Amino acid sequence: MTNFEFKQVAVDGHARAGEFSTPHGVIHTPIFAPVGTQATVKSLTPTHLEDLGAELVLSNTYHLFLRPGDELVQRIGGLHQFMQWPKPMLTDSGGFQVFSLSKMRKIDEDGVSFKSHIDGSMKRLTPESSIKIQENLGADIIMAFDECSDPLDRNYAEQAMGRTHRWAERCLQAKQRQDQALFGIVQGGIFPELRQESARVISSMGFPGHAIGGLSVGESKADMYATIEIVNQVLPPEKPRYLMGVGTPEDLIEGVLRGIDIFDCVLPTRLARHNSAMTRFGRLNLMNAGFAEDHRPIDEECSCYTCRTFTRAYLRHLIVAKEMLASTLLSIHNLHTLLELARNLRQAIIEGRLQSFADEAMAKLEIARTKEKYV
Amino acid sequence: MTNFEFKQVAVDGHARAGEFSTPHGVIHTPIFAPVGTQATVKSLTPTHLEDLGAELVLSNTYHLFLRPGDELVQRIGGLHQFMQWPKPMLTDSGGFQVFSLSKMRKIDEDGVSFKSHIDGSMKRLTPESSIKIQENLGADIIMAFDECSDPLDRNYAEQAMGRTHRWAERCLQAKQRQDQALFGIVQGGIFPELRQESARVISSMGFPGHAIGGLSVGESKADMYATIEIVNQVLPPEKPRYLMGVGTPEDLIEGVLRGIDIFDCVLPTRLARHNSAMTRFGRLNLMNAGFAEDHRPIDEECSCYTCRTFTRAYLRHLIVAKEMLASTLLSIHNLHTLLELARNLRQAIIEGRLQSFADEAMAKLEIARTKEKYV
Repeated sequence: MTNFEFKQVAVDGHARAGEFSTPHGVIHTPIFAPVGTQATVKSLTPTHLEDLGAELVLSNTYHLFLRPGDELVQRIGGLHQFMQWPKPMLTDSGGFQVFSLSKMRKIDEDGVSFKSHIDGSMKRLTPESSIKIQENLGADIIMAFDECSDPLDRNYAEQAMGRTHRWAERCLQAKQRQDQALFGIVQGGIFPELRQESARVISSMGFPGHAIGGLSVGESKADMYATIEIVNQVLPPEKPRYLMGVGTPEDLIEGVLRGIDIFDCVLPTRLARHNSAMTRFGRLNLMNAGFAEDHRPIDEECSCYTCRTFTRAYLRHLIVAKEMLASTLLSIHNLHTLLELARNLRQAIIEGRLQSFADEAMAKLEIARTKEKYV
Repeated sequence: MTNFEFKQVAVDGHARAGEFSTPHGVIHTPIFAPVGTQATVKSLTPTHLEDLGAELVLSNTYHLFLRPGDELVQRIGGLHQFMQWPKPMLTDSGGFQVFSLSKMRKIDEDGVSFKSHIDGSMKRLTPESSIKIQENLGADIIMAFDECSDPLDRNYAEQAMGRTHRWAERCLQAKQRQDQALFGIVQGGIFPELRQESARVISSMGFPGHAIGGLSVGESKADMYATIEIVNQVLPPEKPRYLMGVGTPEDLIEGVLRGIDIFDCVLPTRLARHNSAMTRFGRLNLMNAGFAEDHRPIDEECSCYTCRTFTRAYLRHLIVAKEMLASTLLSIHNLHTLLELARNLRQAIIEGRLQSFADEAMAKLEIARTKEKYV
């Protein structure tokens, strides 16, 4: 396979099992990408990630631009070398973080000025500088600089969409490296006609892959799923589709059913740091006193290191005693849950039984929601 | 080898290379034991410890008695099972922590009442309850309950020593399990005649191993080394000798030269959490801005995972960004430094070149102390 070729191994309904080739290896889709915001997936070593079978790791342009600086990372040899992750990587454009993390920001047609959340200094990102930063970082997949609006505000959504399209064009112009795939991002809030227009415009620009941005930011699940359907009817099926920042088990299943190939989210590692285990049967708060003497692993059918090795009683002890190892062990388990779910979804597509697999998986999650207590 | 047999493989001056057999495997001495205070060596998985070649892990009776409780650990299957460390373990008696951690304590002939540092509730430890707790925890080596005095206060040291001797007798009486080795502890502050008396009394009681307690708690290095010499002249050479709570590279070298077999200390993992790397050449504060673009590992000759994999620049970035992985990676390196030093000391004893090895190692550490900056 040549770089950035997207080969569809199997199709089942709207869903696809694919292979996307990058300079650092092939990504098998559908795939979930763990997030290493500051060039580290929190509390895990690269060896943990390899053991988990992770194939794609995301890192954040906004954070690395501010600290330690993309030029420093470039001089050390790029992000792969810096954090010692030898497999494919993806960087976002910084657009979303400017809107979600920075307290003061000023958007103009040229770009965004904002206050650093670290030291309060004024910084600026433009489509051109975002691409330059991402070229310095050197991920395999890089993202167009977009404007993420309030998804429910039509006026704002339309303006932000227009700017996102003009910025996408500028990103394509600015891009110089040939060993990186630049993905375009579809915006448009929850408004079908905006999303359709955005998908048309973005997919006409010749990107090797497309992303759906601005979801999972406050809209309803129904709106999110409807938006995915609308966008994917327009996006060309022969290119990979990436649903940005989405990562509950339910959303993975619903997204794959609607033709999404790539997901990322901080949820599994963030929940881990808040004592919560993601399982086939919903979430489990391991802080719960009911687990104090529970000899069982988090999930008896889970094959992750944490479940193969430790009891709920021990995990609860680590949490109560405020031991760092709790975060590590729960991050391993939660990432395994999503990585394994993506692998299982892929296998179900290949075997032409996605709908029944999805129904069964959703039913288990639904049972957990309606039950009083996980046992 | 039968359990708790101490076989001397080689002798070089006062130093010995030995094998101490326990129900969970053979310990090769001299050895450094990482400390897992709350049933976890902070920020590391058991797999990390195995990869580091750790053979003996210490855990703290005081902490586990208070949380999660020794009876709970016993019901889960004991400490090895609870924290999933399959190799030899050692628990201290709780005596030292009562004196160092608890704000209010009242000592009487029978035992010690103290305020829990966790919830302020009143707790009590006696020689009998310390042994019972340690039997519930189930380590391979357990320690007699002792009183740790101010090492410079002769009156107090003498009283505490007398009580330690009477308590040692009661610990021997209280002990029921046959699969644990109970070590006696020599006290007596920095006073040669007290230390000699304590070593005589304790070694007359028939313990399978002996420890030197109450050092590295405020006395000078000269007093510490002199005390080790005095005590080891009296302790029988055919039994293992454990220097409690001591763990700088210098102290390992000086201790082994004077006939110590076992060391433990929180220093390597504590320094790691404070951004400090222990090396053959002294300590390195990785927070230092001078390391921001340093492509080298902490120590180019070190074979640990951290040094084989990451640059100082990356470690500094993790520290500045307050990422947990910094603690994990520095703990791996610091523990490797001490475990490897102990292994090298052992090899030097076997090859009859301990003094020259020690001279060279001490010279490197001395150079670091007198240099302005580690480069």
